[in-house]
Amino acid sequence: MDIFRFNSVSYGYTKDKPILRDISFSIREGRKTAIVGANGAGKSTILFHLNGLYTQQQGDIFFHDQKLDKKVRKELFRHVGIVFQDPDDQLISLTVSDDIAFGPLQMDVTAEEAQKRVEKYIKLLGIEHLLTDNPSELSYGQKKHVTVAGVLAMESDVFILDEPMAFLDPYGKERMASILQLLQDQGKTVIVTTHDMQFVAEWADDVIVIHQGQCLGTFQARELFGRHDIMKQANLTLPPIVELMTAIWTGNKEDMPIRVEEAKRWLTKKI
Amino acid sequence: MDIFRFNSVSYGYTKDKPILRDISFSIREGRKTAIVGANGAGKSTILFHLNGLYTQQQGDIFFHDQKLDKKVRKELFRHVGIVFQDPDDQLISLTVSDDIAFGPLQMDVTAEEAQKRVEKYIKLLGIEHLLTDNPSELSYGQKKHVTVAGVLAMESDVFILDEPMAFLDPYGKERMASILQLLQDQGKTVIVTTHDMQFVAEWADDVIVIHQGQCLGTFQARELFGRHDIMKQANLTLPPIVELMTAIWTGNKEDMPIRVEEAKRWLTKKI
Repeated sequence: MDIFRFNSVSYGYTKDKPILRDISFSIREGRKTAIVGANGAGKSTILFHLNGLYTQQQGDIFFHDQKLDKKVRKELFRHVGIVFQDPDDQLISLTVSDDIAFGPLQMDVTAEEAQKRVEKYIKLLGIEHLLTDNPSELSYGQKKHVTVAGVLAMESDVFILDEPMAFLDPYGKERMASILQLLQDQGKTVIVTTHDMQFVAEWADDVIVIHQGQCLGTFQARELFGRHDIMKQANLTLPPIVELMTAIWTGNKEDMPIRVEEAKRWLTKKI
Repeated sequence: MDIFRFNSVSYGYTKDKPILRDISFSIREGRKTAIVGANGAGKSTILFHLNGLYTQQQGDIFFHDQKLDKKVRKELFRHVGIVFQDPDDQLISLTVSDDIAFGPLQMDVTAEEAQKRVEKYIKLLGIEHLLTDNPSELSYGQKKHVTVAGVLAMESDVFILDEPMAFLDPYGKERMASILQLLQDQGKTVIVTTHDMQFVAEWADDVIVIHQGQCLGTFQARELFGRHDIMKQANLTLPPIVELMTAIWTGNKEDMPIRVEEAKRWLTKKI
């Protein structure tokens, strides 16, 4: 079932420079969806429509088959949590604790319940030691963890993360990947934008390819990496494992390993 | 020959939270050096010492065997160009053209020469179309390209880039990689911090590992990926190709492919 549907949506900051151009696509409920495309393709602009921050200038957006009118859009934040690219755009309180509690309190949960969630999610993110710190004094990686905890604490149905892996160290990336997996296990819909094609291969169910404000299609990762036309048009490149396997694979295209573990299994048998 | 040497250097914003702790290491001239480590390990703080922005509180730093005293430090910007993590920390002019010319003009080149360099480097970065734009209105990727052009235009001997690949799309990453190669071909010293371990495998000559403000050693990439003790202590993880090869390689450790092309060549013969 579709949780979001864009129907001929257009949006631009100025009339002569449209960001989204008559774009149509769907996002399915309960799936791990990656939105990929070059810098400036329109990925973040799409995300800002998904939680009601932006309003399209043309076309329709549907959430669970409900047309996003003013009323639905205003309530969208209760269902859709978003982690921005830059944590400085998101951190507003003077302590980490208050910052994480802010989202839940906006959603009318009790102060007690908000506090419970703060404790739960600082633990999940491994940032217990930052609880009383001022977010503005933290490092980038720490700030990112705080914003993720804050959005998790809203316990929405849909989680959107704009470039969640950028600037994270390898350990932080692994933690983020396991959090994304946890959300999926809970039946949540998770949508990320990313430039990390190996992460797309390892993680995504559906990959939506954006190019100059239009959608070139929705693919399974495996399928996309075989579509050289789409990859080229969208200025994408193959992740390392896929590049390697493409050079040596002689079997059916659909069976080619694209993840590290798949490649390991196949090569261990083969050589 | 060493171009930089840190000798028991300490630095902290507050006394009880040191960032660099009695750290010693060297960076060699004309090499491609990657500085790796977890978020908050002290990587950016090291970079800020390399171009004289910060002054160590204890220990000595040498540039070409010259001790960095106040006088040498003041002149360091003529030799060392730095591209910050966040382009917003670096863009100061109202047009892209002025911004790129700013560095060279600070170094007392003529206005005519500065203009020549602007033209040369916007071409190299492929941003000719942005020349008269206001940098503050550009996308992240575009801003990053402008700051890189500005630092290249200073034509220094040493180029430092803090997380050059973060947030760049695959095509932007390829362009950045070829620029780094170009600098190396010109005999420049290039120093980057990065969390992208596959990039370290593909690019770096020397890898300096930082952990909690101390240096765990300088390694060749190939050597580092075999040092599970260091990798674990510094919270690093293997890049995809190395993870794959480690699982299937039975030959000498030192000969194991760690780059995509190396792995391709070996596997093509093998299977």
